[in-house]
Amino acid sequence: MRKIYAIGIGAGDPEHLTVQAVDRLNRVDVFFVLDKGEEKSDLVRLRQEILDRFVTRPYRTVLVPDPPRDRTPDDYRAAVADWHAARAELYEHAILSSLTPSQTGAFLVWGDPSLYDSTIALIEAVLGRGNVEFEYEVIPGISSISALTARHRTTMNQIGRAVQLTTGRRLAAGWPPDVDDVFVLLDAHTTFDRFTSDDLTIYWGAYVGTPDEILISGPLTPALAAEIRETRATARERHGWIMDTYLLRRPTP
Amino acid sequence: MRKIYAIGIGAGDPEHLTVQAVDRLNRVDVFFVLDKGEEKSDLVRLRQEILDRFVTRPYRTVLVPDPPRDRTPDDYRAAVADWHAARAELYEHAILSSLTPSQTGAFLVWGDPSLYDSTIALIEAVLGRGNVEFEYEVIPGISSISALTARHRTTMNQIGRAVQLTTGRRLAAGWPPDVDDVFVLLDAHTTFDRFTSDDLTIYWGAYVGTPDEILISGPLTPALAAEIRETRATARERHGWIMDTYLLRRPTP
Ligand SMILES: C[S@@+](CC[C@H](N)C(=O)[O-])C[C@H]1O[C@@H](n2cnc3c(N)ncnc32)[C@H](O)[C@@H]1O
Ligand SMILES: C[S@@+](CC[C@H](N)C(=O)[O-])C[C@H]1O[C@@H](n2cnc3c(N)ncnc32)[C@H](O)[C@@H]1O
Repeated sequence: MRKIYAIGIGAGDPEHLTVQAVDRLNRVDVFFVLDKGEEKSDLVRLRQEILDRFVTRPYRTVLVPDPPRDRTPDDYRAAVADWHAARAELYEHAILSSLTPSQTGAFLVWGDPSLYDSTIALIEAVLGRGNVEFEYEVIPGISSISALTARHRTTMNQIGRAVQLTTGRRLAAGWPPDVDDVFVLLDAHTTFDRFTSDDLTIYWGAYVGTPDEILISGPLTPALAAEIRETRATARERHGWIMDTYLLRRPTP
Repeated sequence: MRKIYAIGIGAGDPEHLTVQAVDRLNRVDVFFVLDKGEEKSDLVRLRQEILDRFVTRPYRTVLVPDPPRDRTPDDYRAAVADWHAARAELYEHAILSSLTPSQTGAFLVWGDPSLYDSTIALIEAVLGRGNVEFEYEVIPGISSISALTARHRTTMNQIGRAVQLTTGRRLAAGWPPDVDDVFVLLDAHTTFDRFTSDDLTIYWGAYVGTPDEILISGPLTPALAAEIRETRATARERHGWIMDTYLLRRPTP
């Protein structure tokens, strides 16, 4: 039977690959790569660097085009669902046409495949269509938030307290009830700006784990928020893209 | 200057070590090992297996006794703080007496050092005492919750939704507001039992990543809760200890 791996490759540092990920990379005949277009070519390069460094057998790479996506839809969930359906069809086709029934394919997944990533849902959607059968395995990876806390040498939680992982979009609706530590991903709008009078500490990082890594932390004053905002804008301008994430910490009573 | 690494070693599978962790292991002169006594000797064995498999240079291991700890205190946070202070003193002594000023020491940390683990706080506490100076670096690891989701081939979050990481103790106070996916660690009391009429799905795992791994998932009915409870009790009896964690998922509207 065909086999598919969803392999977490860490969020920027090739050394974050696990021994298990390296093992699985070396069983793969075909890597399916989502073609996101020009702007994130740094990420394409990083993925290639990982393959060059760790894979010691021949393989093929199959580019799968990313279906167009409405980034500011009225109904966010419906738009994502449509987009998933279009992707599932493209991947079904790619798997059927590039893998013989005894071959192994893989998706390289940024960070940890379980965190704000659609690869597992995509694989399930392909299986759900019923036109191709395969076994599949998920290989965990170092997430951007593990990388962030490690670089800041801090923890996710305070002693015995809860942690929330959320999106910029959700944080914009207010501080989540009953938690003291909030990780924010997918925030295009520096939403931390709204919390500068709340006695928080911020641990911010962009391009974490890469040679371009930027780390800023400290009490979240208006001045620090402005510094991060400007650093972010400048870096984004320079690279053409940015990936940043942060932890907001409220002191516990 | 002395150097200390806090190295995440994953939550059970030696193959979850990262390339970076393997690199750092091979720069270490002295591994400091918390001596937790008999019952978790399986974990001591696993740590030794990691060293045997990945370290190719001579090293020493220094056992540091774990100070006694009140596991059911009235004031949980104060009890933990006392325990940290006692540990900091023991480790300061261990570092001063076993590392020459140019040597490197390390703590092997279960899972990811940032998640419900006190090693980083301990290192900061040792530094805070001001009697020994050293540089230190944190190496992220695969956490038990990343390992859990990978084995269940599921995600941490639903599309665009928030996730909470919490303890059994906190979950006992009720379902956390405004989140749909809740990871529970450090739960000695099968607290999921209280939520069998809430239309949840549970993804449960014990000894995840080890040869003794047990995985159970499905709609959290009273029958499934009972099955997990009994499986857990039997496994705990047989091994003398248990480490389990779970994700409770509520369908999104
Ligand atoms: C689609 S999510 C994927 C997350 C990924 N699966 C993980 O485990 O980190 C992308 C978001 O992750 C965060 N992110 C990923 N890599 C990052 C990095 N190297 N530095 C900072 N943030 C990163 C950013 O918030 C970004 O918007
Ligand atoms: C003190 S916390 C340490 C967590 C660790 N730093 C991590 O990243 O997973 C210990 C808790 O982690 C969870 N845990 C750790 N390893 C596990 C494993 N292999 N299987 C299931 N749960 C595990 C259990 O909930 C346990 O009570």
